[in-house]
Amino acid sequence: MAELDLSSDVVALTAALCDIESVSRDEGGIADAVEAALRALPHLDVTRFGHTVVARTDLGREERVVLAGHLDTVPLTDPPNLPTRREMVDGEEVLYGRGTVDMKGGVAVQLRIAHEVREPARDLTFVFYEAEEIEERYNGLKHLAADHPELLAADLAVLLEPTNAEVEGGCKGTMRVEVSTKGIAAHSARPWNGHNAIHDMHDILRRLADYEERAVEVDGLTYHEALQAVGIEGGIAGNVIPDRCTVRINYRFAPDRSGEEALAHLHSVFPEHELRVTDLAEGARPGLDRPAAQTFVEALAVPVGPKEGWTDVARFAALGIPAVNFGPGDPNLAHHDEERCPVAQLVAAEAAMLRWLA
Amino acid sequence: MAELDLSSDVVALTAALCDIESVSRDEGGIADAVEAALRALPHLDVTRFGHTVVARTDLGREERVVLAGHLDTVPLTDPPNLPTRREMVDGEEVLYGRGTVDMKGGVAVQLRIAHEVREPARDLTFVFYEAEEIEERYNGLKHLAADHPELLAADLAVLLEPTNAEVEGGCKGTMRVEVSTKGIAAHSARPWNGHNAIHDMHDILRRLADYEERAVEVDGLTYHEALQAVGIEGGIAGNVIPDRCTVRINYRFAPDRSGEEALAHLHSVFPEHELRVTDLAEGARPGLDRPAAQTFVEALAVPVGPKEGWTDVARFAALGIPAVNFGPGDPNLAHHDEERCPVAQLVAAEAAMLRWLA
Repeated sequence: MAELDLSSDVVALTAALCDIESVSRDEGGIADAVEAALRALPHLDVTRFGHTVVARTDLGREERVVLAGHLDTVPLTDPPNLPTRREMVDGEEVLYGRGTVDMKGGVAVQLRIAHEVREPARDLTFVFYEAEEIEERYNGLKHLAADHPELLAADLAVLLEPTNAEVEGGCKGTMRVEVSTKGIAAHSARPWNGHNAIHDMHDILRRLADYEERAVEVDGLTYHEALQAVGIEGGIAGNVIPDRCTVRINYRFAPDRSGEEALAHLHSVFPEHELRVTDLAEGARPGLDRPAAQTFVEALAVPVGPKEGWTDVARFAALGIPAVNFGPGDPNLAHHDEERCPVAQLVAAEAAMLRWLA
Repeated sequence: MAELDLSSDVVALTAALCDIESVSRDEGGIADAVEAALRALPHLDVTRFGHTVVARTDLGREERVVLAGHLDTVPLTDPPNLPTRREMVDGEEVLYGRGTVDMKGGVAVQLRIAHEVREPARDLTFVFYEAEEIEERYNGLKHLAADHPELLAADLAVLLEPTNAEVEGGCKGTMRVEVSTKGIAAHSARPWNGHNAIHDMHDILRRLADYEERAVEVDGLTYHEALQAVGIEGGIAGNVIPDRCTVRINYRFAPDRSGEEALAHLHSVFPEHELRVTDLAEGARPGLDRPAAQTFVEALAVPVGPKEGWTDVARFAALGIPAVNFGPGDPNLAHHDEERCPVAQLVAAEAAMLRWLA
């Protein structure tokens, strides 16, 4: 079994975590290593569910904070972008490799806090969960919230996904719908015997092109909505008038709207069409108006903005726990072939969290 | 080897031809049977190329006429729609089975003429060719036109494809082009970092929807053009702004336009877009203004109209030979699971051709 030395510096620990390959559905090795390292710390109670590990202090503090991160990564490149390597780029030291951004840097910060902060001012719950990068039904945090919500109870949750080490509050919801036009198939040499479903799609696409996306302020942060086609298909054969065309639309909605309200809005955009909802995840309000979150923001003293993408913070929001995203790494480099994180950002993220919790 | 009795009536002969299974690329058996039956007729010179059979009279007549038909069929249904069966439907006797429409009835008429008309007023060239129903590179008539055009030389060609026993002159050309919009990929939660190629497609689809298709008179027949989307696709993943969307368009153009002119026209419809031509087949003028064709139309005394779909008559047109389509069977039932032909139409088509040639 790989061993993790939690007393090493955050950069070495990030590299060690990355170098334990942990593509989704293959998190056994890294979960074993994390579990063993945490069990060696006497101030933590450790439990494990599948390849999800939870560690808690129980000091009877007035407040409790959750620090959460996922253990899995997307697949490696070919040739593999592991083991990690440190390189100087434009005078800056950078750690290269799968997971350096998404999100072994955040996991390393969690583990460093678990090791360093033995008598925190707030009780701490560390969650290391499996299968965030694949189908939702495997998601370890989803299962923990469903099966053991008491283990997640807290006044604030921090999800250490990459945010360039800035605070991103809440997240937008996301919904996907399919809208279809229906025609009548016919030979393409005799279109008057049919009706072209692809031609009819022009009006739906025009409405998408003309749509004015809302910018909405929620708890002091401005979320930018998005209503975007992400796929289209139609056609039977090169000599047939198509009888069906389907566009897939992704609606990213501000957290002032519930999923139900988001769907009602889409019905108002396409009143004459059936909408087939293929997936829906609620958004999360940032909760920055709540005291636990304000303390966090003040202690870190880093920029604060909205989270535009959907993240697992919404799972905490669904449990009534305000949640923010804060972690090292540029989110635009997550899943990237050239995934890499500046060493200084790993160090700064750890330092900011220690300022708050120590 | 199956034997064909050319002295039997046209309905029995059609059934016998259908019952020799001859799905494209498996025409050996039927070509053998047709070749043997023709070689038994002393007034014909018979040659064979692959599974294509040519039989000619050589009486030194002033005019020569080609009668052409293909030997292959599309695949059978499951369970197989062979052997043929005769049934009464609404008081009308009908021959059911694969090939009864496309086009063993026409082939039977060719063979009956070969057997019955031993001293024709015009020299006759019978062409029975392979592989019309599949990729063009296999087409027997295409190969014959390329390798032995002298065998096709004539004043008029009649292609005995199903036309409901009416005369259909010439054919429209067909061209397929792809038109793409280009965007910039981005995460669908942050579309302002990208540009949506699917949204941009609305203008192209609107132009197709609004396009006024020409009706063009050529040599006395009116062809109806068609400009129709036959396929569309775009999209990378459910959370990505698509950077490309492609619509496939089929242009069926009247035979007053060459393929080059048809493409120039499409450039005028989409002046700001690149057009990728994926296939092109020229149309054929009906040539009904030429004496050989006029004699044919007068002798048959059946309705005369344009051929809207593309057919192999265009191969004759390319050799400078006017060509018409005339054959038993409803073209809408070609390739149909319930492919069937009224017996009376087989008899009438044979009688009409004999009126002209005997």
